[in-house]
Amino acid sequence: MAVAIDLKQQQTPSGGGLEPLTRLVEGDLRRVNEIIIDKMQSPVALIPQLAGHIIAAGGKRLRPMLTLASARLCGAEGERQMALAACVEFIHTATLLHDDVVDASELRRGLQTANAVFGNKASVLVGDFLFSRAFQLMVADGSLKVLKALSDASAIIAEGEVHQLMTANDMATDEAAYLEVIRAKTAALFAAACQVGAIVAERPEVDEEALYAYGLNFGIAFQLVDDILDYTGDDDGLGKSRGDDFREGKITLPVVLAYERGDETERAFWRRCLEDLEQREDDLPHALQLMERHGAVAESKRRARLYGDRACEAMAALPDNAARQALLDVVDFCVERLY
Amino acid sequence: MAVAIDLKQQQTPSGGGLEPLTRLVEGDLRRVNEIIIDKMQSPVALIPQLAGHIIAAGGKRLRPMLTLASARLCGAEGERQMALAACVEFIHTATLLHDDVVDASELRRGLQTANAVFGNKASVLVGDFLFSRAFQLMVADGSLKVLKALSDASAIIAEGEVHQLMTANDMATDEAAYLEVIRAKTAALFAAACQVGAIVAERPEVDEEALYAYGLNFGIAFQLVDDILDYTGDDDGLGKSRGDDFREGKITLPVVLAYERGDETERAFWRRCLEDLEQREDDLPHALQLMERHGAVAESKRRARLYGDRACEAMAALPDNAARQALLDVVDFCVERLY
Repeated sequence: MAVAIDLKQQQTPSGGGLEPLTRLVEGDLRRVNEIIIDKMQSPVALIPQLAGHIIAAGGKRLRPMLTLASARLCGAEGERQMALAACVEFIHTATLLHDDVVDASELRRGLQTANAVFGNKASVLVGDFLFSRAFQLMVADGSLKVLKALSDASAIIAEGEVHQLMTANDMATDEAAYLEVIRAKTAALFAAACQVGAIVAERPEVDEEALYAYGLNFGIAFQLVDDILDYTGDDDGLGKSRGDDFREGKITLPVVLAYERGDETERAFWRRCLEDLEQREDDLPHALQLMERHGAVAESKRRARLYGDRACEAMAALPDNAARQALLDVVDFCVERLY
Repeated sequence: MAVAIDLKQQQTPSGGGLEPLTRLVEGDLRRVNEIIIDKMQSPVALIPQLAGHIIAAGGKRLRPMLTLASARLCGAEGERQMALAACVEFIHTATLLHDDVVDASELRRGLQTANAVFGNKASVLVGDFLFSRAFQLMVADGSLKVLKALSDASAIIAEGEVHQLMTANDMATDEAAYLEVIRAKTAALFAAACQVGAIVAERPEVDEEALYAYGLNFGIAFQLVDDILDYTGDDDGLGKSRGDDFREGKITLPVVLAYERGDETERAFWRRCLEDLEQREDDLPHALQLMERHGAVAESKRRARLYGDRACEAMAALPDNAARQALLDVVDFCVERLY
């Protein structure tokens, strides 16, 4: 953790945050966006239509930026990282589309996102197309190491998504299961996205591993922050609205901790809200009160900071350049959203 | 076509059919099944549970048998084709699972298959897992040519499935659009499955192309047969029941031809049944009468035979051995199901 604090003191004059990263990869990202638009085309009109809907709405391009910045950090030259960053975004978009799929029970609670416009089946099949297209791009690049990194990540993501499905509405979920889910469904792609940067730069394996560890820990911190903000955040137009996880009965860390530390009456409350999904108007504020009372939010924030620090520490032996600084700043920016 | 007829006269003493193929690859297929069972395992219990449900029920293993027989035809030695045949089956299973996904409108008409037991979302995510696992197996094999063949096929399949979604319940679908759909959603994987056999045997590209052409034309014939039997077949427990396509409003070749050749009253009938899905008890027998009256079934059968013949002709320059004979016999067996 000491390292992380030192690194924070080296912040750029710009004050850190997301800006150093976006500035660093601005030109590269423009090229990535061109590749994304080009490669999502198909004679089957619904494909670019639906893919365009979600890719345009998607926004931040955080994962491809990680690939671009990691490549930059490692001194990669040439163009390979642009197409591979597009792969990473395609895989991410495919998982978003598949995550949108709903079952009959959920349909009753209203539809969201691409699914609302195009339906379950179109979302699934266009996701499959983007996923296949990602592999075609990797094959064109020709690196079996990249193919291994991203096919491994894809399998882990799918496992994580199924695992999450099994923990939803199940208050028996403990912290270990929660961490396993977010490591798989979110952090594995962050990790692979960064590792790919080292692979294209043909760096020794120890650098691949360092960037993988950075991405993995950053991904865990990122998802923790997202899950905490679902209870404590403002509706800031970042996609989710406050209370979404509560309404769906997702079991996230603040819930796990509040449940563990609660008495029988409180546990009955959590089970009614999140297992039976019987929710009344003031249940969400009450849930937040219980979390605050038991220090579940504070503890979750500490956990986010811990993984953020680990991400930064993983970079210690890598070249100290503007790209590394940007990657450190973005972790900091992410965790600081909690405060 | 002359070639195909000649080849038929060379049938093995067993009388042809499916048996020469199953006998030829019996031992290899046992190994493929072991790999399938081994590679669908996951610590996330729902994955082997759901995958086992569909893979055990799936049955014929036609596509992996094509890979095994093609490899045998080309004189492949070693074990690579076993794992790659498992990949082919995983990709096929993933598309089946994703094809099961239903929208709200369809839910009202009752659920089927894995979806009925596990729900939309689980089917999608386990499909994603199997698809990713297929790519992990290909990466372990290490051939970029195989990766190209199967990632290209996967993208084409997804395009075909979306295209099919767009032609469903649309009587404006013509024969060209129908053929494009089945070429993509069915034949592309047959083609790649066969091509992979030539790749592992390290045969010259012309042999890869021949096996690709065999698989592509066989796949088209296979889907034509399937679509015709949906109207003319017995409920023989092969999975689909007679009239399924009619009830769902799928636009297949017998429908396209009967509609093209029908008068205004008949066209109104087809639109009511397949576009509006307003169906009465004797609509299915009436549909079949119209098809027979206009020769739509006979014409569709001729088309199936034509593609079957093309498949056999594509093999002309390949070594004349037991594997080639088995692959010729299986085409014949498939088309003969119509008579």
